[in-house]
Amino acid sequence: MNAAPITGQGPLAIICGGGTLPLAVADAVTARGRAVVLFPLRGAAEGTAVERFTHHWVHIGQIGKFMRLARAAGCRDVVFIGALVRPSVWQTRPDLGGLMMLPRALAAFRGGDNHLISGMGRLLEQEGFRLLGAHEVAPEILIPQGVMGRVAPSPRDDADIALALDYLAAAGPFDIGQAVVVASRHIIAVEAIEGTDLMLERVAGLRANRRLRAPVGTGVLVKAPKPGQDRRFDLPTMGPQTVDNAALAGLAGIAVIAAATIAAQPSELVRAADRAGLFVIGVPDRTAP
Amino acid sequence: MNAAPITGQGPLAIICGGGTLPLAVADAVTARGRAVVLFPLRGAAEGTAVERFTHHWVHIGQIGKFMRLARAAGCRDVVFIGALVRPSVWQTRPDLGGLMMLPRALAAFRGGDNHLISGMGRLLEQEGFRLLGAHEVAPEILIPQGVMGRVAPSPRDDADIALALDYLAAAGPFDIGQAVVVASRHIIAVEAIEGTDLMLERVAGLRANRRLRAPVGTGVLVKAPKPGQDRRFDLPTMGPQTVDNAALAGLAGIAVIAAATIAAQPSELVRAADRAGLFVIGVPDRTAP
Repeated sequence: MNAAPITGQGPLAIICGGGTLPLAVADAVTARGRAVVLFPLRGAAEGTAVERFTHHWVHIGQIGKFMRLARAAGCRDVVFIGALVRPSVWQTRPDLGGLMMLPRALAAFRGGDNHLISGMGRLLEQEGFRLLGAHEVAPEILIPQGVMGRVAPSPRDDADIALALDYLAAAGPFDIGQAVVVASRHIIAVEAIEGTDLMLERVAGLRANRRLRAPVGTGVLVKAPKPGQDRRFDLPTMGPQTVDNAALAGLAGIAVIAAATIAAQPSELVRAADRAGLFVIGVPDRTAP
Repeated sequence: MNAAPITGQGPLAIICGGGTLPLAVADAVTARGRAVVLFPLRGAAEGTAVERFTHHWVHIGQIGKFMRLARAAGCRDVVFIGALVRPSVWQTRPDLGGLMMLPRALAAFRGGDNHLISGMGRLLEQEGFRLLGAHEVAPEILIPQGVMGRVAPSPRDDADIALALDYLAAAGPFDIGQAVVVASRHIIAVEAIEGTDLMLERVAGLRANRRLRAPVGTGVLVKAPKPGQDRRFDLPTMGPQTVDNAALAGLAGIAVIAAATIAAQPSELVRAADRAGLFVIGVPDRTAP
């Protein structure tokens, strides 16, 4: 992890689905001095967030329009990232239907179907582009293995992390949120569609009303990619806000899968963790081949 | 299920742990005309709820005191029910320690250890008592197999129920709440320690803020006992309040494991379901031998 990034000539084209990953990659590549051109997908990408960058909105089926605009911008390298599974896309499917060049696209993205990716990669490559993964162009956005700040997990925290990883492995096939809070070897909260922040808010509430009586400073938030998740599209993301919310929930720290989790604002994240006295650790990926 | 109850002479002694099961049994047995004497366990049973009945508070180790009081009340049959795993008991463990006649008691109850039950059963039987299960003295408190009200689940609801049962079976070994909301084959919310009502409130909120876009009237709440749960101590419980909360969450209905779920106020429950247009169904226990 944190290997040397793949570099190339000209600006990097980033086809942006939903979530923070496309923007984290755009920021990382820009910080290294390479220009980016964003191609946010209508119905998937977040509207205002892309405006900081040169960008062209496209529909999911408009590969021809994408290639024309990308060539005009001098782009050869293409990264295609971000979730297409947000409810907003899912709901607008009827509108997108007529625009889709690839009829299986949505279903395929949803399941992380590698056929689609390789098919699109071949198409782009036949046209002279090169399709790369986000972790290849911006490896520094991935959280490395080991402790990130000044605080390390205790043996009790390690036991909670192990239980959480066991649970997430068991729950993975059910396509749920892939985050969980464990305290003193008990599962306190499971994230489904509500998101990590709302789950942490719930844990804070359970402490406030004494349903959770483990002392403040016990318990871990553990996040992991879903087992079938195609990591070229979407990865769990964590930022300073996650650390602040974990602190409000009275947790001891946060564990994520190393090299498979995006750090939004990594230096602020570490500062927030050190300030709150929380650990943040990247743990080995047990599912890695 | 709903077999004829085991009847006996004299009042029924009910040793009460936490949760609603002891009181549901007390109500059912009383409704049939048999007197009950409650022996709420300090630190486990709910304080005010037992006051409607003749009762004597006991500590978990005071079997001698229990037998003396039960004999004086003319009780021969004993039911021992209710959770000992509430955080409140767990927290008071140091205080209880010196009082425990059986050192393994808490750990055993926690895991539903049949050795403890059979050991206690033998002890009570040597002293002339008979230890019965709650479902033996009050089978009518258990939800039967089949649809309870006027509304039946659709094939789409059946598919959601099947997915929910698969998930609960996978999550069972992790000792979590054993309730889940599924809509359109997606897991929407998972109950951990927050309880079913708070989970349903969360689903209502996710609908209100459009994070959950499935139309009102889709989605099911499914509850199941934990795989290792000793059903003589604790079972999932559902009442009219559960139905009302499921309706507020916009669900289509509720499925529970037949003969393994307590109906608190069953006739009010059915009325609430019919009024709200929700189904309530008892489904076969796939884990039953």
